[in-house]
Amino acid sequence: MELIKSTQQASLDKAIYRARLGALREKMREHRMDAYLILTDDFHASEYVGDYFKCREYISGFTGSAGTLVVTADEAGLWTDGRYFIQARDQLEGTGIRLMKMGEKGVPAIEEFLKESIREGGCLGYDGRTVSAARAGQLEEVLSSKKISCDGNHDLAGGLWENRPAFPEGKIWMLEEEYSGRSRAEKLSFLREKMREAGADCHLLASLDDIAWLYNIRGEDIAYTPVALAYSLIEDNRAVLYVCPAAVSAETEAALLMDGVEIRPYLQVYEDVKKLDGGRKLLVDKTIVNTTLIGSVPDRVTIINRPDPTMLEKAVKNPVEMDNIRQAHIKDGLALTRLIYWLKKEIGKEPMTRITELDVCRKLEEFRRQGEGYLYQSFSPISAYGEHGAIVHYDPERGTDVPLRAESFLLLDTGGQYLQGTTDVTRTISLGPLTGEQKKNYTAVLRGNLNLAAARFLYGCTGMNLDCLAREPLWELGLDYNHGTGHGVGYLLNVHEGPNGFRLKERDGSRGAVFEEGMLTSDEPGIYLEGKYGIRLENLMLCRKAGKTDQGQFMRFDTVTMVPYDREAIDPDYMSEKELARLNVYHARVFETLSPYLNHEEKAWLAEETRPL
Amino acid sequence: MELIKSTQQASLDKAIYRARLGALREKMREHRMDAYLILTDDFHASEYVGDYFKCREYISGFTGSAGTLVVTADEAGLWTDGRYFIQARDQLEGTGIRLMKMGEKGVPAIEEFLKESIREGGCLGYDGRTVSAARAGQLEEVLSSKKISCDGNHDLAGGLWENRPAFPEGKIWMLEEEYSGRSRAEKLSFLREKMREAGADCHLLASLDDIAWLYNIRGEDIAYTPVALAYSLIEDNRAVLYVCPAAVSAETEAALLMDGVEIRPYLQVYEDVKKLDGGRKLLVDKTIVNTTLIGSVPDRVTIINRPDPTMLEKAVKNPVEMDNIRQAHIKDGLALTRLIYWLKKEIGKEPMTRITELDVCRKLEEFRRQGEGYLYQSFSPISAYGEHGAIVHYDPERGTDVPLRAESFLLLDTGGQYLQGTTDVTRTISLGPLTGEQKKNYTAVLRGNLNLAAARFLYGCTGMNLDCLAREPLWELGLDYNHGTGHGVGYLLNVHEGPNGFRLKERDGSRGAVFEEGMLTSDEPGIYLEGKYGIRLENLMLCRKAGKTDQGQFMRFDTVTMVPYDREAIDPDYMSEKELARLNVYHARVFETLSPYLNHEEKAWLAEETRPL
Repeated sequence: MELIKSTQQASLDKAIYRARLGALREKMREHRMDAYLILTDDFHASEYVGDYFKCREYISGFTGSAGTLVVTADEAGLWTDGRYFIQARDQLEGTGIRLMKMGEKGVPAIEEFLKESIREGGCLGYDGRTVSAARAGQLEEVLSSKKISCDGNHDLAGGLWENRPAFPEGKIWMLEEEYSGRSRAEKLSFLREKMREAGADCHLLASLDDIAWLYNIRGEDIAYTPVALAYSLIEDNRAVLYVCPAAVSAETEAALLMDGVEIRPYLQVYEDVKKLDGGRKLLVDKTIVNTTLIGSVPDRVTIINRPDPTMLEKAVKNPVEMDNIRQAHIKDGLALTRLIYWLKKEIGKEPMTRITELDVCRKLEEFRRQGEGYLYQSFSPISAYGEHGAIVHYDPERGTDVPLRAESFLLLDTGGQYLQGTTDVTRTISLGPLTGEQKKNYTAVLRGNLNLAAARFLYGCTGMNLDCLAREPLWELGLDYNHGTGHGVGYLLNVHEGPNGFRLKERDGSRGAVFEEGMLTSDEPGIYLEGKYGIRLENLMLCRKAGKTDQGQFMRFDTVTMVPYDREAIDPDYMSEKELARLNVYHARVFETLSPYLNHEEKAWLAEETRPL
Repeated sequence: MELIKSTQQASLDKAIYRARLGALREKMREHRMDAYLILTDDFHASEYVGDYFKCREYISGFTGSAGTLVVTADEAGLWTDGRYFIQARDQLEGTGIRLMKMGEKGVPAIEEFLKESIREGGCLGYDGRTVSAARAGQLEEVLSSKKISCDGNHDLAGGLWENRPAFPEGKIWMLEEEYSGRSRAEKLSFLREKMREAGADCHLLASLDDIAWLYNIRGEDIAYTPVALAYSLIEDNRAVLYVCPAAVSAETEAALLMDGVEIRPYLQVYEDVKKLDGGRKLLVDKTIVNTTLIGSVPDRVTIINRPDPTMLEKAVKNPVEMDNIRQAHIKDGLALTRLIYWLKKEIGKEPMTRITELDVCRKLEEFRRQGEGYLYQSFSPISAYGEHGAIVHYDPERGTDVPLRAESFLLLDTGGQYLQGTTDVTRTISLGPLTGEQKKNYTAVLRGNLNLAAARFLYGCTGMNLDCLAREPLWELGLDYNHGTGHGVGYLLNVHEGPNGFRLKERDGSRGAVFEEGMLTSDEPGIYLEGKYGIRLENLMLCRKAGKTDQGQFMRFDTVTMVPYDREAIDPDYMSEKELARLNVYHARVFETLSPYLNHEEKAWLAEETRPL
């Protein structure tokens, strides 16, 4: 798996983007479009997308993971969020594209801008395969008051793109039941039951991780995430999996067929939905299925729009998955513990070894590869030294790689894909003597991390009810972090997986998902001081039942991440007795779990690092 | 103000209710109604209603504050919630009305039951003045699939009611600006600005406390709540207040007129809205305005349905109100502190003085009457001894009054209406030696109460984000309480006022209201052990700003309730150092604030009671 994203485009002269923009406007005129919209999405509303889908980057030169390009005859704007303001400013300079800072005063929303710029009765174009049916519906509604029509039938940017990367057709492989914990037949039977409950007799599934989960298959079409580009149409007594047929071995095809799952070519789904009989009741999640595909469904079919039933079921890990996840985290914990030990030792040498942020990633990858069943990283690693740590989504691969010095913090947020599950862990590592303020802040983040993990709560709570437990120690100091406290994590799937998480506020205005036994969620408070340093500590936790009383069912979290905190960064004077006990219990578990696998030297170091405070 | 609710009906023979049900069915046949619905509401969606509006009680005999009666030709059911299952069972026995336990398995929702019981093309009747437009809309939607029509034009129950209490026409009085803190003219100007923002040129207000707030008037039409039955129609350059004209003195009328507010008879509003011109844009909150009144609005008027702008503005107390609220709470704190001292002294006598739950209420009322500007209680007091304390909405007036003994707890939840604001306070008072478990539980509730009050949090949080701070100490013990942690409180208005509060889950599925400086909210965790005892501790807190850092605006709470906790019930071994400090700081404030007003004996007792632990 390629770890380093292509940065070729960024180095090309900006004239190229001006030329591409010109060519796009030419095409818009041909199709009588007054504006053209390019989102970041692939055809499946995936968080990360393959290179084939990076049309927005191709036209604008902006490489961020979130951004929307709008082009009219005389204007062009790229909307992105706070994470990318600096990067977008640099990359858009000289391209003729204006940076639209989302959420800032005076910056119109995309819909507003489109309504303003397009003439009455005009036309907005986009590639409908990259726009969810829900989003397209919103656009149409907003624009209808000016009688603006939407044309989603043309991939204008793709049409211009010479040497476009090939459409991904990675191999599809089976995930054995010792890893998945549940047979395909059982999962299909569960899903069909949910379809019946919803009053549906067929179900169109477009979410790549849901398809991978349902069929116990994995793919290679998206970096960091082992999924295949696919659709699926599930009916009461048959199911069709639409994928690249060449990606499926005869053995896999036979195994799928045994469970009544037929393989058909990826694009065939657009034809097959057109043939659905009248009176059929089709379950779809319009926030995921793209508008072109929904547009292919005949009017005679009733659409039942609701979240894919697989989403919640996939989030609730089964007992086999839970056991595997613990095993994966022991391997991952060993790799990270060895890395920290190695780093502390090298940094301590006189003269100090030269190690850069990227060297740390490479070394960690080396240690991770020693773990059985390790495949590759679960996301682009964040190795952020000193002031880089204050940039929440820092990426050392962007030519900013610096050597470490024997002071301040290294913030290391990485994860792995193992046959036994997906990991995601952050440790902030002190590389030399710390100031009192640095220790106070590290200790506040640690307290937040430990206190949320220690929560015992009534069944029915969501992340919105519990998030403040992690923020409280920071709020006491007038500090906060501008991100959620935690996200759900998949099983050998997306490192960001819904619906569970810890947030003060959900984007959709809901109260979020109720915690169920088996949900895997990150716990990652942080402090980011611009120009100085960043601190984040992240563990993954499985939600478990914690006894039933006559007041109800209680729940708790079981931390699966096994990596010591940085002893030198902790000031126990800021911790209550309860918090110190929580730290010591965790450290004792880390030592007990990891020490059997460590060599003498590593073990002695870990013993010292995890000694009770 | 009459404190004791009428319980005459409860003592009548059940035959009366069977006869009334028969008469109602007769009327239903006359009007060709297949079912008739009686809600608990008055014409203004008030929480508490005047006796005139108690049709549901008149027909069914059930006196609870929440319950909905549905009558068909051969069935009758009363839907109520867990608070009233026992009371409703007793009161409905022999009436021919089935108790429908809301939320229990197998119990259909009201809408579901209506749809099931009414024949295709049939008719549902109700008094549309008692049903909000939003609720009526839902009913119509659910029933439309069976072509069932709704007839909201007949008050059948009222028509049967001989000796119905008179329609309330209590005196309306002016609240001076030294109490309200803001002139009527300013409030009207604020509201008109909000109307413009909403694109409205007129606004129909039906919420009684919003009307009282807007015009700086108070009334006497509802027990415990100083509001008048009223509507108001506000336009850009005029406003009409619809009330009983006899209730308004010439002086008040003149003062209102000075601000361009005209008085018209209460019922005139139904005629006036019919005359609204075409093209007018009318702002209404359909969850409050009744469906009959909305039905009178001509089709040519555009309705803008959203929450009344006064709701949020009223919840945010102004600086004068905040100062007054603190003063009211000193008076209220003195009354309660004197009551506790008196009670402890009397209970300690040999032989013990005979004191019942109701005696305590009477004595407290005596102490409260000593406070300048005290009007009357803000709700029916809960004075619950021993096992009665476990009944969350216990009402000693229901013939269950018992004498206190020198053991266990008395749970006392009461409040007052003062010119300087509304109070609501709960203390749980130990009357003799406690068991270790009782102390452990009292201390857990105390910790929850103190910890929520100590919260320092980022602006943007709602009660849903913070509620768990109060529950955490209980959850540690496997305990919880089946009610919200807190509710908003009005200023000389409703003791339960929206939109702020502390809840794990909002009824409307939203995340609740963001805390703003000036909001007044209760903090009242509890433990209820059926058949044993109940513990609840309740303070009111004003939300305040707490400094701005580069991370954002921080907020805190300022506790205004000034009453000592029960020293004998606290086991400091269960409290952290931080929690003990919180307790000691509060107790020091209570002593400092109240002691100047106490006599020598009382002062000595309070000094001991609030000595640092």
